[in-house]
Amino acid sequence: MLEKLRHDAALVEAELDRLLPLPAPGPRRRLQEAVRYAALGGGKRLRPFLLLQSARLFAVPEARALRAAAALEMLHCYSLVHDDLPAMDDAELRRGRPTLHRAYDEATAVLAGDALLTRAFAVLADPATHPDADLRCRLVAGLAAAGGLDGMIGGQALDLAAERESLDLAGIEALQAHKTGALIVEACRAGAVLGGAEAAQRQALEAYAARLGLAFQIVDDLLDASGDAAEVGKPLGRDAAAGKATFVALLGLEGAQERAARLVAEAKAALEAFGPAAETLRRTADFVLERRT
Amino acid sequence: MLEKLRHDAALVEAELDRLLPLPAPGPRRRLQEAVRYAALGGGKRLRPFLLLQSARLFAVPEARALRAAAALEMLHCYSLVHDDLPAMDDAELRRGRPTLHRAYDEATAVLAGDALLTRAFAVLADPATHPDADLRCRLVAGLAAAGGLDGMIGGQALDLAAERESLDLAGIEALQAHKTGALIVEACRAGAVLGGAEAAQRQALEAYAARLGLAFQIVDDLLDASGDAAEVGKPLGRDAAAGKATFVALLGLEGAQERAARLVAEAKAALEAFGPAAETLRRTADFVLERRT
Repeated sequence: MLEKLRHDAALVEAELDRLLPLPAPGPRRRLQEAVRYAALGGGKRLRPFLLLQSARLFAVPEARALRAAAALEMLHCYSLVHDDLPAMDDAELRRGRPTLHRAYDEATAVLAGDALLTRAFAVLADPATHPDADLRCRLVAGLAAAGGLDGMIGGQALDLAAERESLDLAGIEALQAHKTGALIVEACRAGAVLGGAEAAQRQALEAYAARLGLAFQIVDDLLDASGDAAEVGKPLGRDAAAGKATFVALLGLEGAQERAARLVAEAKAALEAFGPAAETLRRTADFVLERRT
Repeated sequence: MLEKLRHDAALVEAELDRLLPLPAPGPRRRLQEAVRYAALGGGKRLRPFLLLQSARLFAVPEARALRAAAALEMLHCYSLVHDDLPAMDDAELRRGRPTLHRAYDEATAVLAGDALLTRAFAVLADPATHPDADLRCRLVAGLAAAGGLDGMIGGQALDLAAERESLDLAGIEALQAHKTGALIVEACRAGAVLGGAEAAQRQALEAYAARLGLAFQIVDDLLDASGDAAEVGKPLGRDAAAGKATFVALLGLEGAQERAARLVAEAKAALEAFGPAAETLRRTADFVLERRT
């Protein structure tokens, strides 16, 4: 499984490399470098992996799926850059490296995030992504909805709303469904859209992704509570220290582990109609549960 | 002319009001309010006006042009919010009111800007903007190009590159062509695209807009050097005090005035083929030259 993830991550890395401008001499060089620093050089690439695997269920040509996957990852990377800013989470490390505003500066981090977000839509709207313009518009609209006020940005607002210490389980699930779930669901949805999937197939993938996304977040809390900082690549225990409600705080280590396992089982069950073709997506769900970083 | 501008500005305001979510009770309310604070309540609305007027040359149905105009203005408003941030221009006032991060807070300003940028693309990709999906994709791609690294964001990077005191006339013109020109050109281009204009017509409008945009910026410098702060709605003389190169510093008050007048004459000449139909766009160019705010 790890090998499959790494294989696709390398493809996505190469696609991002192609789609982002190379730094050229001149006063914009620093910003061009910062954009590449934010988007290249690692990460699990889980979202593009889910898009690619979903697209493969429908035999979508790889070049098309890779463009959509890279666009989705650009949007994810922009969100990390902006969320890490001093005015937001004030994070120092990301993927074991200084966050963008620490490696460059805050203004560059704001602009690099803006540039990645903008570029994501340019890539999706380009005929190279798919010959059918109506389908491209659906990808643009889907990504904008997943990334917008009713999706990821709304989730970050919920997270910043400072009432997090008083969140109950339903509250924290809603927060995560917006903040991380929406984009994970969009990954699978985009694969289905690219493949011309029927509504029932698309909905099955969305159901899978919603459960997978929540399980992913619960495991994040578990790793934050009991993982290895060197392996994970960022300081741990910050949420608990800040008194923030987490799945672990609400459910306990064992309860959180059980909840994640149940969600993963449900995610796998949602794929039943796809039969053996969805085996990699099922194993991805297991991987999310068992990951240590 | 002012009356026409105000008329269209009111239409754009109403369209933005329709397209941005109403604040609802709950933890996201503050962000929803901030998005509306950033986008509603004034401004000259020059860019959407240019889009609407260009679209009218081709008898584009008003409802379609208004959606595209509102999307363009969302992108413009997001750029103002992010450019005003403490890490960028650290501005206190905008349109005579506290800037967004002063009225709310910095995290909310980053997110509200992100939300406006994201929403702009959602609006353009929506079939309500135009029934032809290929045309919608061209609008998405055009706005992304104008707003991206090779356009507006690149221009802001040039502006922040701190070498501005050493910029010559060609350098400052390149900066402004990116920072403000690209989006003004996109306004006229989008009107032509919506109207199914021929390439020559579209290019004439782009030539008009490029000259208009530069003249607009020169007049901005003139107002900054000798305008009335109460009328303009923000503190003046900051660029000169910061030792930044401006058109006025490089050309003198009279030279800058002459350069702006020549650009406006060229802008009007570019519209010759449209005949009397383009009279409002010609008068818009005169207005840009004569404006006092």
